[in-house]
Amino acid sequence: MKVVLGIDIGGTNTDYGFVDHSGEILLRSHYSTDKFNKFEDFVNSLYNEVSVQIRENQYELAGIGIGAPNGNYYHGTIEHAPNLNWKGIVPAVKLFQKKFNTPVYLTNDANAATIGEMLFGGAKGYKDFIYITLGTGVGSGIVVNGQLVYGHDGFAGELGHTIAVENGRQCGCGRKGCLETYASVTGLRKSVELLKEDYQDSSLYDISFEKLTGKSIYEATKNNDKLALKAFDIAAEKLGKVLANAIAVTSPKAIFLFGGLANAKELIFEQTKNYMEENLLNIYKNKVDILPSQMIGNEAAIKGAAALAWNEIG
Amino acid sequence: MKVVLGIDIGGTNTDYGFVDHSGEILLRSHYSTDKFNKFEDFVNSLYNEVSVQIRENQYELAGIGIGAPNGNYYHGTIEHAPNLNWKGIVPAVKLFQKKFNTPVYLTNDANAATIGEMLFGGAKGYKDFIYITLGTGVGSGIVVNGQLVYGHDGFAGELGHTIAVENGRQCGCGRKGCLETYASVTGLRKSVELLKEDYQDSSLYDISFEKLTGKSIYEATKNNDKLALKAFDIAAEKLGKVLANAIAVTSPKAIFLFGGLANAKELIFEQTKNYMEENLLNIYKNKVDILPSQMIGNEAAIKGAAALAWNEIG
Repeated sequence: MKVVLGIDIGGTNTDYGFVDHSGEILLRSHYSTDKFNKFEDFVNSLYNEVSVQIRENQYELAGIGIGAPNGNYYHGTIEHAPNLNWKGIVPAVKLFQKKFNTPVYLTNDANAATIGEMLFGGAKGYKDFIYITLGTGVGSGIVVNGQLVYGHDGFAGELGHTIAVENGRQCGCGRKGCLETYASVTGLRKSVELLKEDYQDSSLYDISFEKLTGKSIYEATKNNDKLALKAFDIAAEKLGKVLANAIAVTSPKAIFLFGGLANAKELIFEQTKNYMEENLLNIYKNKVDILPSQMIGNEAAIKGAAALAWNEIG
Repeated sequence: MKVVLGIDIGGTNTDYGFVDHSGEILLRSHYSTDKFNKFEDFVNSLYNEVSVQIRENQYELAGIGIGAPNGNYYHGTIEHAPNLNWKGIVPAVKLFQKKFNTPVYLTNDANAATIGEMLFGGAKGYKDFIYITLGTGVGSGIVVNGQLVYGHDGFAGELGHTIAVENGRQCGCGRKGCLETYASVTGLRKSVELLKEDYQDSSLYDISFEKLTGKSIYEATKNNDKLALKAFDIAAEKLGKVLANAIAVTSPKAIFLFGGLANAKELIFEQTKNYMEENLLNIYKNKVDILPSQMIGNEAAIKGAAALAWNEIG
């Protein structure tokens, strides 16, 4: 049976799975990332494990797709990823290809997830859409004319780092006011921390920033906690406004939301849509849907990486 | 000789020209737009004039490209263009095709000019770039993977109507703070009008908004007029910031500037680049050039419309 190997490299663990042409994961497992100081050792060790699985299941390996932080599609490299052991520029595709002797494709995790949504999820048949992951940070992938937008250097699609508020909140990237500082789990926590003095009766008032979680803020909204609701409202507002500007660039048919915040459906979708419509140029109004991703959380990364390979192999 | 007819429809006049495959205009003329109340009459009359030229010059007409305000590429229609006599939705491509019996392509003027720059101007060989016209308004066209971005509805690429300043200047589109209200000739005039009380010794102080022109503001900068210089600085600042956000979407190799403000080279290019770099995410810094369009002002529209057709015919 023809399969591709989808690999999602994270700072601590690497998830991988064998995925068939219809997007089904036939076998999945995970692997330590951070115990390997050399990328070559990581590849060799993974190869030994995977080879057995291929033999035992009589898979025919058609290719490998890799999603990795700071993965560059054009160069096949992982470049200066802050959360990985391997510093500098890692020629990941070259090393995988040498060991596995099969076509290997690599991009960053958000781009891989975007292609996953297009091939196997809710974006099937969409030629123009934007995909947003609302997790610890905000990632995005953009599809135009049925193709993922990589840009001239492979780094296109960083909506999380468009500036939502001039001179706004300090972002980890060194600048101020990035969307990510408002519309991510970290952004929710910041909103609570910054506004809590105005909401002294909030159940979140006594929780320190370090102990605050997205889950605790979400739970508080169920008790109609005004501070928690305000944090979600701010996230939706900034996301809606950034989307309104992004629509004026690529005019997508839909925007798909994935990740922690997107799971809080009743607090995000309608609100973001309202803020977006309020800020849209007339010609775009009431045309662009905001839809939930159809990928299941812990499958999206593997399927996305596999979709990258299937998309290239055809 | 194989030629295409490039037609630029404006509110008052229509410019057209026969353009060969290398982008040379072999013959050009213009035609009244506003004396025709019916689009069919406009097409018929233009046909009669153009037919003679085709016959006399023994042209072989390979196709027609049209740039028009609110021109929709997918539908071949001109939709609700405020400055044209023809109201509602005009099926322009259908009517041209019927009369001329040749392939006809239509898009808006900024998109046509973008394709002109790609085929015949400074963007030759660029697969990913953004094109900006800084005239009475701000128009733009975006190229990704060597293809113009039309979006799902044909209306992509309206950077002039991304919001540069929250709750900023009133825009003609009904919203506030659009880039166009700062970085166009109209924007320059608004800057002078809004700031003049702080610059009472400016040579522009006594000129009413209605009489202010882009040219008079530009001339004043030559005498180091602080108000005039400030107006250009504001234009460059807002443009630079919007470009920084747009780069995070499509990661272009270059941005081409065209039109009135771009002609004031020494006041726009370096300044816009500085503001842009200041606001760019690290991974994009020092990679994106801001370059002058290589199209000559009064040729760009005809060549752009012709390029649209050549690009489709191949």
